[in-house]
Amino acid sequence: MRTSFDTIGIIGKPSDPSIAGTLALIYEYLLQAGYRVIIAADSAEFIRGKAAVAVATEQIGRHCDLVIAVGGDGTFLSAARAIVNYGIPLIGVNLGRVGFLVDISPDELPARLEATLQGHYKAEERYFLRAKIIREGQVIHEEIALNEVAVHRWITPSMIEIVTQIDGVFLNSQRSDGLIISTPTGSTAYALSAGGPILSPSLNALVLVPLNPHTMSNRPIVIEGGAEIELSFCQTKQIQALVTCDHLQIPDVLISDRILIKKDPKPIKILHPEDHDFFQVLRTKLNWSNG
Amino acid sequence: MRTSFDTIGIIGKPSDPSIAGTLALIYEYLLQAGYRVIIAADSAEFIRGKAAVAVATEQIGRHCDLVIAVGGDGTFLSAARAIVNYGIPLIGVNLGRVGFLVDISPDELPARLEATLQGHYKAEERYFLRAKIIREGQVIHEEIALNEVAVHRWITPSMIEIVTQIDGVFLNSQRSDGLIISTPTGSTAYALSAGGPILSPSLNALVLVPLNPHTMSNRPIVIEGGAEIELSFCQTKQIQALVTCDHLQIPDVLISDRILIKKDPKPIKILHPEDHDFFQVLRTKLNWSNG
Amino acid sequence: MRTSFDTIGIIGKPSDPSIAGTLALIYEYLLQAGYRVIIAADSAEFIRGKAAVAVATEQIGRHCDLVIAVGGDGTFLSAARAIVNYGIPLIGVNLGRVGFLVDISPDELPARLEATLQGHYKAEERYFLRAKIIREGQVIHEEIALNEVAVHRWITPSMIEIVTQIDGVFLNSQRSDGLIISTPTGSTAYALSAGGPILSPSLNALVLVPLNPHTMSNRPIVIEGGAEIELSFCQTKQIQALVTCDHLQIPDVLISDRILIKKDPKPIKILHPEDHDFFQVLRTKLNWSNG
Amino acid sequence: MRTSFDTIGIIGKPSDPSIAGTLALIYEYLLQAGYRVIIAADSAEFIRGKAAVAVATEQIGRHCDLVIAVGGDGTFLSAARAIVNYGIPLIGVNLGRVGFLVDISPDELPARLEATLQGHYKAEERYFLRAKIIREGQVIHEEIALNEVAVHRWITPSMIEIVTQIDGVFLNSQRSDGLIISTPTGSTAYALSAGGPILSPSLNALVLVPLNPHTMSNRPIVIEGGAEIELSFCQTKQIQALVTCDHLQIPDVLISDRILIKKDPKPIKILHPEDHDFFQVLRTKLNWSNG
Repeated sequence: MRTSFDTIGIIGKPSDPSIAGTLALIYEYLLQAGYRVIIAADSAEFIRGKAAVAVATEQIGRHCDLVIAVGGDGTFLSAARAIVNYGIPLIGVNLGRVGFLVDISPDELPARLEATLQGHYKAEERYFLRAKIIREGQVIHEEIALNEVAVHRWITPSMIEIVTQIDGVFLNSQRSDGLIISTPTGSTAYALSAGGPILSPSLNALVLVPLNPHTMSNRPIVIEGGAEIELSFCQTKQIQALVTCDHLQIPDVLISDRILIKKDPKPIKILHPEDHDFFQVLRTKLNWSNG
Repeated sequence: MRTSFDTIGIIGKPSDPSIAGTLALIYEYLLQAGYRVIIAADSAEFIRGKAAVAVATEQIGRHCDLVIAVGGDGTFLSAARAIVNYGIPLIGVNLGRVGFLVDISPDELPARLEATLQGHYKAEERYFLRAKIIREGQVIHEEIALNEVAVHRWITPSMIEIVTQIDGVFLNSQRSDGLIISTPTGSTAYALSAGGPILSPSLNALVLVPLNPHTMSNRPIVIEGGAEIELSFCQTKQIQALVTCDHLQIPDVLISDRILIKKDPKPIKILHPEDHDFFQVLRTKLNWSNG
Repeated sequence: MRTSFDTIGIIGKPSDPSIAGTLALIYEYLLQAGYRVIIAADSAEFIRGKAAVAVATEQIGRHCDLVIAVGGDGTFLSAARAIVNYGIPLIGVNLGRVGFLVDISPDELPARLEATLQGHYKAEERYFLRAKIIREGQVIHEEIALNEVAVHRWITPSMIEIVTQIDGVFLNSQRSDGLIISTPTGSTAYALSAGGPILSPSLNALVLVPLNPHTMSNRPIVIEGGAEIELSFCQTKQIQALVTCDHLQIPDVLISDRILIKKDPKPIKILHPEDHDFFQVLRTKLNWSNG
Repeated sequence: MRTSFDTIGIIGKPSDPSIAGTLALIYEYLLQAGYRVIIAADSAEFIRGKAAVAVATEQIGRHCDLVIAVGGDGTFLSAARAIVNYGIPLIGVNLGRVGFLVDISPDELPARLEATLQGHYKAEERYFLRAKIIREGQVIHEEIALNEVAVHRWITPSMIEIVTQIDGVFLNSQRSDGLIISTPTGSTAYALSAGGPILSPSLNALVLVPLNPHTMSNRPIVIEGGAEIELSFCQTKQIQALVTCDHLQIPDVLISDRILIKKDPKPIKILHPEDHDFFQVLRTKLNWSNG
């Protein structure tokens, strides 16, 4: 039995030779199972001699019905960003250590991959944030993030003071090292390191987590997923800020800039194995077994 | 101009003479404005000599179109519990210190109360949790809570181990002093003291906050508002647990009991003044002005 | 080669048959090595048929030159309390899971025990806290604690307000579920669950950790080890408090009582294996290997 | 009555005209009281027309018996650094808002300053940390810090992995945004924002506070004040780190560098008013009055 997937793309962790074995395993399986396969150019070298069709990562979504990301959560984030505009689903394969997003392990290949491709999956939609940097009324930079948008102080020894508005209503003005605006997906990533709560992946919510706030009484705040967040700076000195969208850096943000952050309407569809269990991943990653 | 409210109930902070002045102010205003007024029996003594109709707090909802709670957030919680089954709205008047729920201050009386009664309000629905204690298949106790249901170790020097399931799926088994299940309303109360995040009041979500968990890696978890939470105990020793619903105590919970917690379908409608601003209350209560 | 230890006591985890094997192993080794051995009465049944001399735990220190505690950290705490007045050293043997205090594992027996008894050890002194409950000018209860003294609200739905003075100087008055005063030894126990820092065992310091404080801006405070701490209550209602010293409960503390807490001058001497490494235990217990 | 102070230096908050009034007040008082006065060149412009002797901040200690810092805690830190080698005491005057270090307020001038200069003070010694950056066996940079030495990731989107040794013993290797090593003085500054405990100023201890650690189970650790801390990096990628000593930045630290941090033997002596109360400052700064 075959599903509707004809052409499958593979995006691997860039420049990491340790993925070669897993990549070859997936590649061979897909060919034998009768799929057409396209490899992201970054990873093509690791299955050399196999005459794979290689395409730039940014273009791979145009040619495929489904993409498999092979690596860690960081690789998955990059793959999701690369294909979100093409509306095709994404599967994550890890390199031996389960991530929050990459849930098929090499030693389960090809069985779990085969089951998933044959329709035995749990589909889940995750949403991106879209961040816009506004300077003198113009959008000078625009980026999306599946985990979080973070604002950091940058090349300055003092804290920055960030003014936050939510749907046009003033929330607060706080001095800190910065501020994370995280999706439920990102709540188990950087936001968690900064002291944020875990959000159930399906929750329509965002969480704001301050980075080392000057005032003791600041706390993470969970707000509606559809809220528009506007950040600006309240400074007397000339400072610069760094905005990051997942791992992408926008370093030259000025104190006179405003930053608008809002959930993007286009989701990425993730195909999990049917027995996928978010709580089980949580227990593993957070060492809850030792309770 | 009059609204559709004819009979208004007043529930005051029980046994606290300091409410007498504010109570009298409200009572006089309502009579002059042509409303019929009923006083909760607990508070009637503080407006003695005024021939007020006094009714038991639990019965007051039966006779009124609207209730005014006068006191702190605790008084508001009790009033909400007393009237929720009657489907009538609630207004909160504080005693000089703004609470998260009681947002009209004595020095704004009667102007803000008048405006609210004349229809210039912001209506908001808040939901209760319903907790059921199950023993040998029977519900032996049932209670509602607007802020939080909390499970505590009780008369035992050791931590208790609570097993949590969410919609039938195992979340974790953790040793701790207890566990708070909080609504968004409760997220600024006890859950906040225990390290939980703030939840926007309108969010359809619950937050689970462990009390002094044995494992360092536990964190608050925010889940769907409609989830059913089942708690049980995993113990070798005979211990007892205490369950609290807001401030009500259910002390004799056995380790063989199960506790089911789920959002109640019946909301309480709160009438805020039109310029009510949750973020402003947050800033005041959490001292954010000193950022 | 023999050391100066002639008579060795053994105190096992009470009423736990799983210690029988380890107990027998230690007992046989000690006899063969020529020591006289005395067993705490609680554990004597587990080496039945071996004609061991059994003595009440509280008396064992009177007859021995050294005591071996066999169990978890809780057993070690009880043993330390039982023998501290006799000035003899203590060795901890665990039951398969290294504790912060019990650092010889069963699979290292008898080799590591032998080495330790022959003088190849790292001696370390740990100090107790002494808590006194004062009622109407009289000490009505007095207890020691190697980990922590904790004050908890008790049979009351509201928070308690504890007034803290340090060496006669007012520190603060805070509403909370309670307060932990912990030694460095206790900083990896209950105080850690409550959000306290880790204190190096040799540090001459104490740490005060509030339990779910009402005010967001409270924080653990580390003070001089020799400080005298005085706690009293600031309440309008009649409440009761529970004071715990390690795992011992003093339940009937009144709001008019004062609690004095001060480091006790008499230390307990712990003999660790020569390669004992506190940081290594920390890494194991706190799962730091997964960084 | 005069004390042994003959020549008094004044170091003001640099480039801040708002200090002019307080500066003039102090200057006039000191002249009238018969002291010789030297002004830091940075502040001299603010008392123009007064023929004050102006000297570079770094040189001021050479010419004075005592220095008065006028500004916030940042100004006090700079003044302390400038004069520590001259062994002279320091007094802090704030600009209307009490700091942890600057404890005489403008509205108490000149009375409290006069009392202090006449010998009615509480002297306290605070210690600096000395940080050395070691490259290929050579100290390439050396700096002191009264509050904290902090290591931050720098111009890199990923966390850094810092390996910590204490007195030559491996503590841990943790991925994070960085690490703060703080004195007791610094425990109420940046370390507090990062979640560290408060340390009593007189405690001979240091505290290590991780910045947004990747692992949930990391915690601040309080160690002996005399310990030598060695930090190195464990990275596969070329990254850079930023080291800050109070507010001074050492930006070009390489992943092959080591950082040695140790308490400096030379203290700075601070003269507080006789009724100085650290706990009172804590209560004010952390809003503890609202408990």
